[in-house]
Amino acid sequence: MTFDARPLQDLVQSDAFLSRHNGPDTNALTHMLGDMGWDTVNHLIEATIPADIRLDKPLALAPPTSEAEALTRLRAIASQNTVATCYLGQGYYPTHTPSPILRNVLENPGWYTAYTPYQPEISQGRLEALLNFQQMIIDLTGMPVANASLLDEGTAAAEAMALCRRANRKNKSNRFFIADDVFAQTRDVVETRAHYMGIELVTGPAETLGEYDVFGALVQYCGESGHIHELAPLIDTAHNSNAMVAVAADPLSLALLEAPGQFGADIVFGSAQRFGVPMGYGGPHAAFFAASDALKRSIPGRIIGVSKDSRDQVALRMAMQTREQHIRREKATSNICTAQALLANMASFYAVYHGKDGLITIASRVHRLTTLLAQTLREAGISLRNERYFDTLTLDDYAPAELRARAEALGINLRYRPDGGVGISLNETTTLTDLDRLCEVLIPKNREKSWSSLDQRVIEQNISGIPESLERTSDFLTHPVFTRYRSETELMRYMKRLENKDLSLVHSMIPLGSCTMKLNAASEMIPISWPEFANMHPFAPSEQTHGYAALITELSDYLAEITGYDSVSMQPNSGAQGEYAGLIAIRGYQKANGQAHRNICLIPSSAHGTNPASATMADMQVVVVECDSQGNIDLDDLASKAAKHSDNLSAIMLTYPSTHGVFEAGVRKACEIVHEHGGQVYIDGANMNAQVGLCRPGDYGGDVSHLNLHKTFCIPHGGGGPGMGPIGVKAHLAAYLPGHRSTSTNDATGAVASAPFGSASILPISWMYITMMGEKGLTRASELAIVNANYIAHRLSSHYTILYKGTQGNVAHECILDLRRLKAEAGISEEDIAKRLIDYGFHAPTMSFPVAGTLMVEPTESESLRELDRFCDAMIGIRKEIDRIVSGEWPADDNPLVNAPHTHRDSLAEWQRPYSLTTALYPSGDIDSKYWPSVNRVDNVHGDRNLVCSCPSIEHYR
Amino acid sequence: MTFDARPLQDLVQSDAFLSRHNGPDTNALTHMLGDMGWDTVNHLIEATIPADIRLDKPLALAPPTSEAEALTRLRAIASQNTVATCYLGQGYYPTHTPSPILRNVLENPGWYTAYTPYQPEISQGRLEALLNFQQMIIDLTGMPVANASLLDEGTAAAEAMALCRRANRKNKSNRFFIADDVFAQTRDVVETRAHYMGIELVTGPAETLGEYDVFGALVQYCGESGHIHELAPLIDTAHNSNAMVAVAADPLSLALLEAPGQFGADIVFGSAQRFGVPMGYGGPHAAFFAASDALKRSIPGRIIGVSKDSRDQVALRMAMQTREQHIRREKATSNICTAQALLANMASFYAVYHGKDGLITIASRVHRLTTLLAQTLREAGISLRNERYFDTLTLDDYAPAELRARAEALGINLRYRPDGGVGISLNETTTLTDLDRLCEVLIPKNREKSWSSLDQRVIEQNISGIPESLERTSDFLTHPVFTRYRSETELMRYMKRLENKDLSLVHSMIPLGSCTMKLNAASEMIPISWPEFANMHPFAPSEQTHGYAALITELSDYLAEITGYDSVSMQPNSGAQGEYAGLIAIRGYQKANGQAHRNICLIPSSAHGTNPASATMADMQVVVVECDSQGNIDLDDLASKAAKHSDNLSAIMLTYPSTHGVFEAGVRKACEIVHEHGGQVYIDGANMNAQVGLCRPGDYGGDVSHLNLHKTFCIPHGGGGPGMGPIGVKAHLAAYLPGHRSTSTNDATGAVASAPFGSASILPISWMYITMMGEKGLTRASELAIVNANYIAHRLSSHYTILYKGTQGNVAHECILDLRRLKAEAGISEEDIAKRLIDYGFHAPTMSFPVAGTLMVEPTESESLRELDRFCDAMIGIRKEIDRIVSGEWPADDNPLVNAPHTHRDSLAEWQRPYSLTTALYPSGDIDSKYWPSVNRVDNVHGDRNLVCSCPSIEHYR
Repeated sequence: MTFDARPLQDLVQSDAFLSRHNGPDTNALTHMLGDMGWDTVNHLIEATIPADIRLDKPLALAPPTSEAEALTRLRAIASQNTVATCYLGQGYYPTHTPSPILRNVLENPGWYTAYTPYQPEISQGRLEALLNFQQMIIDLTGMPVANASLLDEGTAAAEAMALCRRANRKNKSNRFFIADDVFAQTRDVVETRAHYMGIELVTGPAETLGEYDVFGALVQYCGESGHIHELAPLIDTAHNSNAMVAVAADPLSLALLEAPGQFGADIVFGSAQRFGVPMGYGGPHAAFFAASDALKRSIPGRIIGVSKDSRDQVALRMAMQTREQHIRREKATSNICTAQALLANMASFYAVYHGKDGLITIASRVHRLTTLLAQTLREAGISLRNERYFDTLTLDDYAPAELRARAEALGINLRYRPDGGVGISLNETTTLTDLDRLCEVLIPKNREKSWSSLDQRVIEQNISGIPESLERTSDFLTHPVFTRYRSETELMRYMKRLENKDLSLVHSMIPLGSCTMKLNAASEMIPISWPEFANMHPFAPSEQTHGYAALITELSDYLAEITGYDSVSMQPNSGAQGEYAGLIAIRGYQKANGQAHRNICLIPSSAHGTNPASATMADMQVVVVECDSQGNIDLDDLASKAAKHSDNLSAIMLTYPSTHGVFEAGVRKACEIVHEHGGQVYIDGANMNAQVGLCRPGDYGGDVSHLNLHKTFCIPHGGGGPGMGPIGVKAHLAAYLPGHRSTSTNDATGAVASAPFGSASILPISWMYITMMGEKGLTRASELAIVNANYIAHRLSSHYTILYKGTQGNVAHECILDLRRLKAEAGISEEDIAKRLIDYGFHAPTMSFPVAGTLMVEPTESESLRELDRFCDAMIGIRKEIDRIVSGEWPADDNPLVNAPHTHRDSLAEWQRPYSLTTALYPSGDIDSKYWPSVNRVDNVHGDRNLVCSCPSIEHYR
Repeated sequence: MTFDARPLQDLVQSDAFLSRHNGPDTNALTHMLGDMGWDTVNHLIEATIPADIRLDKPLALAPPTSEAEALTRLRAIASQNTVATCYLGQGYYPTHTPSPILRNVLENPGWYTAYTPYQPEISQGRLEALLNFQQMIIDLTGMPVANASLLDEGTAAAEAMALCRRANRKNKSNRFFIADDVFAQTRDVVETRAHYMGIELVTGPAETLGEYDVFGALVQYCGESGHIHELAPLIDTAHNSNAMVAVAADPLSLALLEAPGQFGADIVFGSAQRFGVPMGYGGPHAAFFAASDALKRSIPGRIIGVSKDSRDQVALRMAMQTREQHIRREKATSNICTAQALLANMASFYAVYHGKDGLITIASRVHRLTTLLAQTLREAGISLRNERYFDTLTLDDYAPAELRARAEALGINLRYRPDGGVGISLNETTTLTDLDRLCEVLIPKNREKSWSSLDQRVIEQNISGIPESLERTSDFLTHPVFTRYRSETELMRYMKRLENKDLSLVHSMIPLGSCTMKLNAASEMIPISWPEFANMHPFAPSEQTHGYAALITELSDYLAEITGYDSVSMQPNSGAQGEYAGLIAIRGYQKANGQAHRNICLIPSSAHGTNPASATMADMQVVVVECDSQGNIDLDDLASKAAKHSDNLSAIMLTYPSTHGVFEAGVRKACEIVHEHGGQVYIDGANMNAQVGLCRPGDYGGDVSHLNLHKTFCIPHGGGGPGMGPIGVKAHLAAYLPGHRSTSTNDATGAVASAPFGSASILPISWMYITMMGEKGLTRASELAIVNANYIAHRLSSHYTILYKGTQGNVAHECILDLRRLKAEAGISEEDIAKRLIDYGFHAPTMSFPVAGTLMVEPTESESLRELDRFCDAMIGIRKEIDRIVSGEWPADDNPLVNAPHTHRDSLAEWQRPYSLTTALYPSGDIDSKYWPSVNRVDNVHGDRNLVCSCPSIEHYR
């Protein structure tokens, strides 16, 4: 070595993160390109992306930033948020995240990098945690069945309305009752949905619901004022008129209040946020949804069910998956295809950790403190609007302006209602010291000095905000899981046991087509735990949220530049929600321009099922456009259908590159055709990871797109959620982006999610990614995503049929392996290969989407050449195994594929297979670091026929 | 349920952490007591602890505090620290901890709760990481062998001196040269050690070492001024006089400087702190120690070596363990028996992550920035004392007072030398912006404005602080491990693969006698990552360290109250270091009272080997006191030996409860005997976990004790370090606690560790534990530790012989199972049982300490009844297996015990054992959550005979 003559610039390495995020290093890249016969990356890209859409200049983004510098900058942004003591309530409450859950679940890649548990054999850990979530909800609500979470409480409410509509065949009314004290943001989301479902909402005090002829009603157990409704008469009244009733309920209150199920509720929903999940400026949290037995097969979202595996062991899996994975286009009733798995699991562990007695104690404490406050206020002569309460009081006519100044001086947020009332919601973190400070604000001259004597009085006189008739008598959380893991040691081991059952990105590549399972870097994840981001209420005064405002503005600007759009909305909290919001924007725009009649939505036959589902929800009529033999949109068919529906053409929904994994050459033309007929172009951003820095939907014809931040922009999948689906639009659509009353924007459009910025607290992840990668890194990532996919297609092409390629023979960032011939020849299905891959240590690629009988592989840029080769070796190994079946060496019904995956139990059984145990268990030869599935192949049919969605007894497991 | 009539106090649950920390709940406790025939805990305790030492009042500590409240209070304390921009250097440097290492190692219980890898079969993960550490040190230093870390650089220096002394038999000199520009704190630790070893230190400029007749010399490659020494002539000169040379080296500088091994150094040591380990106000970090081939079997501390297992697979283990576990009492040369495993692993992953080119880039950047600063200063007319430098400049005569005011106004810490010079050390985190601010301070009116043109000039003119003769030419980090895991995805998977090979507290109980493997709660661990604690330099001005001062004062007060002592020193950073410091305090006190001749240290035959080792290091003569047949100290023998040595009696070293796991009834008497003969009483605090709140060493006769904060006070073991060994003393010894020049305390005594408060950054763990538990919780923990141990003794007593019990038949917090009869009858050793426990999913108890042929079991209070029963069931299952050997059913040389542990490879081999594979692999019947060791039984003898302490080639692993 000699004197290091590199300029300082090179030594500073502000682009160091690029080589951390991207898998292939320079040597690997050279090797891969050489193998494929390309001299440079650019030549490969030129032969992949149509020239007429290539971006002709670099994105106007900053250069890469080091991890440390990006964290420093984000710290500065975070510090512009002011975390006040929060009594705002309205569905969002401060909570103590138990430290072991924070550390071992939320901050642990073993949990947060897992994918949705479509492959149950490698997912038993999170499936069990989600089943615990369902059991907790079943118990708390008193309903027989619950799902594994929904996006937020507002969405759950809208789904409840939709479920009432389709389940209540007895009642032909077009009207739905929503009580006037349902949380405003819940009402907003329901209103938006109702509008496009053609449902008329009627409103009044809950107790007046009998006055309306409606097919269903939504009441909130504890209303926004804090008042607790007597559910029994309400539900009876509704049922007498053949109306169904959905009850919004606070899960903590249900530790003290009788379960709505005891009163006959048809649906109970709410938010599990306050079970240990930080408010996060609105999300992500897990909403819950429970229903009566009659509705159990119609519940929206995912349901975890109990089944068995091929060795008759108890095995969990997502029940009735076919409902989801193959959303029935025109017949779709909901576009819900994600959950909030990570947050549901946090909430379920919170319940496991606290158990019944712990929840009762917390709820009783919150309620007692509320009682102490109520008594103190009453005795000071302040009148309360609600005599009944769990945790929320509304003060009547109490000079808010003066009060507000006092409160803000002490860093206290109260809720100042438009009608002059003042709302105060207490929570798990509230202490007597907090109460002291509250009293300083509320009754500065007249404070109860001795809490303990007041407390004594309250006990002696039985003073409570909960009427005796509503006190809970039904039992809950009686399953052993809610008592066994109450010491931290036991909880930690339980969480670790579950974690280690699952395959996640900490083990190996998860080559899921269209799901972009790239690195979720630790530096991206660290900021979401910062209190300035985590502990912010979504309706905190804007003076306190400058940090979030700056973050959202910067990120929106980045995304606008990346997509070529003019405006971005962060409200949609899933990709499907983004689709829905995007279509609503189109409809809003068209309506404003006198074209409300335009309701035809063209959708190529290759589209993901959520596309037509979202279109249906936006009250559009789906017309399918065919694909040609190469998998491309048939431009002639498109032209003819666009012409045919020209008068009523609202939009086309395209995915680009296509779900077939190809940069279709005709995309610009397709957009032009639609525009010519007065339609708008929706470009699904699911495949944005192939485009960043290379081409932009806003440039080649898109009017609106959603972006899956949990795909392209590094938000982890969390084992099945959270996600974020912000949308970008051209300027003409900007006025029709989702509105939110808390930000007073786009009131006319309405809200699609409960919180104004969706799952705001995970936006730092995408901000960090973009900031660290910079223009150079983002573009490089897209290039490498394409290189990696083409390398896999290249290596596998002599063993498998690559179904679709572009005009110059290249795939985009993913490729489809056509297995239909193998099925015919050897009786081997894509599922057999998927399960066999588990034996090799890999998660399966996407199965039978978008083409039945295929596997779709997307490696992402984060995988190294070594890992790509390991995967290709596994696929080639499997191909050779198939040959042995074809040759008759192994029987079609007894070979390593149909018996896959193999488990420890196989090694114990008397081994009488025609192949060796070593072949079964260690096909790749890797003994030391093998991933072991915890069950053999799971029987889905058995589970769906015998639907059990609650925890089996411990004996069952034995 | 009815109205919750509990007082608010009960609902607040400020003692909630107790049930999180303690394993047994009320039901379990009732069950256990009933099983043992006790009605109350108190009766059991009364029958366990001698009445004459029971504490008769509660500890004067606060009541329990909730986790949230404790975190809030500690946040307030932390905020009293001010983290400045740090140029203080002197062995401590700001560094960027790579986020994936921070999250997945330092903050991951899978890594931090593991024990020292004495059982290699369950430790291959951290053994590999430690082997990587050794390889990294071997490569950087150019030496053939390195150990797996030492406590700190000062300790390493003292050990280097000691090694020179005992290895250099050719040279009879009593003098050791230490260069005058060795870091002051290093010198201090060496001085203390030299004093008690009877070594005379001589000092001068490194270049003058030839002028002295010495047996060895210590020089620092880059001196404290920053100057770089030409090592070759120094070493040649020394060698020509038969003196050995130890070189202190900075590992980052070695990326650019030629390795000291190339110049013939005998020993190279230093601190790996700046490889990604936060400064933490002084520790913990890993020191390193490398030596020549001739010294490889004499290296102090732990060495990881390569061996093979019973299936001839490569297997790692601690080499030459017998040196450590059975320190040879009188012949001991060092009391080093711990390492800084967790920190060494962080440093080793840092090297794995950056690789050779990464380290060169970082080092070059630091050096270039230093060059830019040096040039700017020179051109501004400021003279530098050192022309040569790596990262440190010393400014000559530069009006420090005025300068200091300017610097502090900008939040910049420079080093103000007593001689008027100003030291500036740059580091990995330094940026050009930092340089700008530095120049504002140093040359406010005369700044170089364009760094890039200066940079260009530097490159063109080859300006460097490193003379060409010292530029590194030898290669390093060439092993594939340093190139394979450079993307975050690959690194994360590598770390996870290693983690999952190891058994830690996240899997099951680790029932190690005398090691107290209790819960390390997440809430205790969270604060150590806070920047206010993590990023503080140990020599930061005291105005900036009020938070640490408050923390240390509070924790010291707590520990004084808990132990019954008057003063506490936090300096010793391991238990053994505490012993050494305690004995020095005794000797210092006696010397000051004209009793320097007192040098006899009585040590019971049951003592841990570190006791005599520490006594030897304090220049004391060990006299062994016998035990009686019950394992208690033979008071007659004690009396007679105390009398015999009355004139020269310095101290006794007791462990209480004894290492035999018993509260000896005669402890007060034993202390009195020693005091009567003018001796002091050292009570080893290893077993403090049985005493907190129940009895206090300071009350029943102790003059000084160390506390293992990593045992009783929840600092995790980290897979073999860190630890903390603060000592408490009675008032008369307070003046003789370790001193430190940075705090100007007890200058006469000298320092025992490099940093004034040892491993200060982990003290928050113990503070959190004590604060959350409060008086009530700490006492309860001790009681439950005793209950749990007695329950195990009770359940196992009909299957195994419990070797020692107290006068009323109870054990303390641990119990010894005597296996010697089984050895005689069945040929089964304690090792066989230990390895068989792995098959059952448990870590082995402590083997053959303090009695050969036994196992010592300590469950701690954190284990639940279910886990205790699981362990007892396993032990009973093993006992039944032994019966089958005794009965002849299984041959003595082919049974599940001698073949244990079993691995996946066993399931693949043709199975021809006399027992089934199910018996081999799943003796407990637990298939799903079984822990799998990654190697079969490791061959220690083979490894020690063929000592290989560097990474085997990748082919080796295949």
